[in-house]
Amino acid sequence: MRAEIIAVGTELLLGQIANTNAQFMSQKLAEIGIGVYFHTVVGDNAERLTQVIRLAAGRSDLVIFTGGLGPTQDDLTKETVAEHVGVELVTDRPAMQHIEDFFLQRGIVMTENNRKQALVLAGSHVFANDFGMAPGMAIRHDSTTFVLLPGPPSELYPMVERYVMPYLTSLLPEQQVFHSRVFRFYGIGESALEERLLDLIEKQDNPTIAPYAKEFEVTLRVTARAATAEEGEALILPVENEIRNRVGQYIYGTGEDSSLHQVLVEELRTRGESIACAESCTGGTVASLITSVPGSSAVFRGGIVCYTNEVKNQVLGVPEEVLDTDGAVSETTAKLLAEQVREKLGSTYGVSVTGVAGPDPSEGKPVGLVYVGIAAEGLPTVVKELRLAGKRRAIVGRAAKFALFYALQMQKER
Amino acid sequence: MRAEIIAVGTELLLGQIANTNAQFMSQKLAEIGIGVYFHTVVGDNAERLTQVIRLAAGRSDLVIFTGGLGPTQDDLTKETVAEHVGVELVTDRPAMQHIEDFFLQRGIVMTENNRKQALVLAGSHVFANDFGMAPGMAIRHDSTTFVLLPGPPSELYPMVERYVMPYLTSLLPEQQVFHSRVFRFYGIGESALEERLLDLIEKQDNPTIAPYAKEFEVTLRVTARAATAEEGEALILPVENEIRNRVGQYIYGTGEDSSLHQVLVEELRTRGESIACAESCTGGTVASLITSVPGSSAVFRGGIVCYTNEVKNQVLGVPEEVLDTDGAVSETTAKLLAEQVREKLGSTYGVSVTGVAGPDPSEGKPVGLVYVGIAAEGLPTVVKELRLAGKRRAIVGRAAKFALFYALQMQKER
Repeated sequence: MRAEIIAVGTELLLGQIANTNAQFMSQKLAEIGIGVYFHTVVGDNAERLTQVIRLAAGRSDLVIFTGGLGPTQDDLTKETVAEHVGVELVTDRPAMQHIEDFFLQRGIVMTENNRKQALVLAGSHVFANDFGMAPGMAIRHDSTTFVLLPGPPSELYPMVERYVMPYLTSLLPEQQVFHSRVFRFYGIGESALEERLLDLIEKQDNPTIAPYAKEFEVTLRVTARAATAEEGEALILPVENEIRNRVGQYIYGTGEDSSLHQVLVEELRTRGESIACAESCTGGTVASLITSVPGSSAVFRGGIVCYTNEVKNQVLGVPEEVLDTDGAVSETTAKLLAEQVREKLGSTYGVSVTGVAGPDPSEGKPVGLVYVGIAAEGLPTVVKELRLAGKRRAIVGRAAKFALFYALQMQKER
Repeated sequence: MRAEIIAVGTELLLGQIANTNAQFMSQKLAEIGIGVYFHTVVGDNAERLTQVIRLAAGRSDLVIFTGGLGPTQDDLTKETVAEHVGVELVTDRPAMQHIEDFFLQRGIVMTENNRKQALVLAGSHVFANDFGMAPGMAIRHDSTTFVLLPGPPSELYPMVERYVMPYLTSLLPEQQVFHSRVFRFYGIGESALEERLLDLIEKQDNPTIAPYAKEFEVTLRVTARAATAEEGEALILPVENEIRNRVGQYIYGTGEDSSLHQVLVEELRTRGESIACAESCTGGTVASLITSVPGSSAVFRGGIVCYTNEVKNQVLGVPEEVLDTDGAVSETTAKLLAEQVREKLGSTYGVSVTGVAGPDPSEGKPVGLVYVGIAAEGLPTVVKELRLAGKRRAIVGRAAKFALFYALQMQKER
């Protein structure tokens, strides 16, 4: 089944909001194996919307609209689809009741334009809106199914989860599932990864292999199409083995919600260990990544952002001689910071990051030079030297991720 | 001039990322008065991309592509546009040099597929990529201008600001300038702001008024279209006065690059003051916002992420009795944390944040309850109680911004 998603709303074309509805719908459709081939955004304009509807009807089996179901003059998705399909708009009784109740309960006088929200395409399948007024609906015409959904995410998401997904699943011609596995890499770039897997990627069909880079990490998604999850798994397994043979040392985890910080927090929790960090150039980014994970308080002792030499010296005890001779950006400082923060905050691991984030060099050291120190209970402290490219934000982001990655590696040695 | 934006990438159709590039480009085009009529997302597929290009060429004067310029097999925007336009791809010497230098400087062997990134459409106008490898380009064909830009936002944004905007402005049919001013708000929501300015927004024409929310701040852009910057300024002035009359107390700054942390760092620098922070629930976010500003090392002393009560007690000296009776999330703790971190790190201001980020309540206190403390040299410490809505990420983000906002307010009193 070929699907496409059409978002209706001038605010999207003005850049006032991002089209996160299309992202959400794409994820939901991917889950049940419906392939999405296009996203379109069109403004609140009947003529252009009509063009878009005709084009979509000609190339897709399933066309999902978001937005344009509200009470105002601007909202014309229903009207325009009704014209294309050749049906009237009729009042949906339950929806009208729901709207009247809404105003009654709040003691507000209902303005006339709210009645418009209860109108649906005659003969359509109606989806209740439990968190708003305008219902959604689905109608089939000339072998294309049109699904009209509200724009506000707070109304769209629950409507889709509760009512639209069961409806769409019922449309699927044969029972097939999309079974996928996400591999998460660190320490290898997207293009280097692809080079190592080029022949696999080129001959891909089922399963498909898709690498992508996001938030300074690289991810590879392998997706199999099969009758059952077990058959899908059987298709993925040989590909997974081959990937692990070639680039297994860079894989730090699998799964959708498993960024480096999530995997690290989970590992620490499982092992009953804790971590603390001393950050100079990353300025709190390592700590904020770790603490972005719910439940991190069980494993994160705390962090010290030692942006100045005084703090490195006074709070973390790096001797002035070291700061004067080796410098704040040095292997020795990184080592001491990691060890001191671990000791001071009483954690299993101490992680430090010190470097030059730019835009200007510091201590005569180049932008992008970063030292990451990892101290662990009962093991010698390790310091890694990095030469990172990019702007300040990218250097900070990558350095923080490297710190998490090295902490994970250190964990394997304990 | 009618424009449309085409994003190329299967990861968008799978819902792995949202099309924020289209949002960014729409905002940039709106600034110079170019109307965007469609956004399209298409996968890494030559046939469907060709269809989309033909459709766009037939209806738009300006077609902007993002994505698909990388080194991999998937990346085929250049190849497909070249075929539509009927030109060859040729190596751009400066781009090739830039790529070779990149690998040389890092001492990494360049893989062969990276050469592909230096290919451009013969006869096109090339935009340098200062933060990545693939250059952008523009070419005119049959009265349509095609602009091809890289997908990663870290490469796209600076390329657009530096090179693409001047190029696009030069395409505008008559000499006109777009003169705009951005007002930055805190402490008022987007819809409340819009409500207060509704009549102005509704009758807008020249200047236009566009509110939008971004990264937990609200921004209002007023843009005038005029023959000269002076005339534009004259159009903006009365609107600015009216806005300041109505909602001036929420304006903390003006300008493009002036998020709360940038304004705060700039103010501190001008006044020769410094700041330090003690963070519990924000977990390093305040520190990382401050240190994201280049040059912040002149004003930022450091931060302590006191995630556990032990660190609050041992490193920052909050008495155990206070933690036991008032709790870690309390006015007293916030006050002590702000004062202690200021004293310990020797800064003009000390800022603290302690609260419940969720997902679960803590100490019997509800998710979203946050205390922000601001200590300043020579002034009584102030503590603000916040009740924030949203998920963990939003609560942390808003709490951190409130901390910066209150620090700015405190600064006005010194």
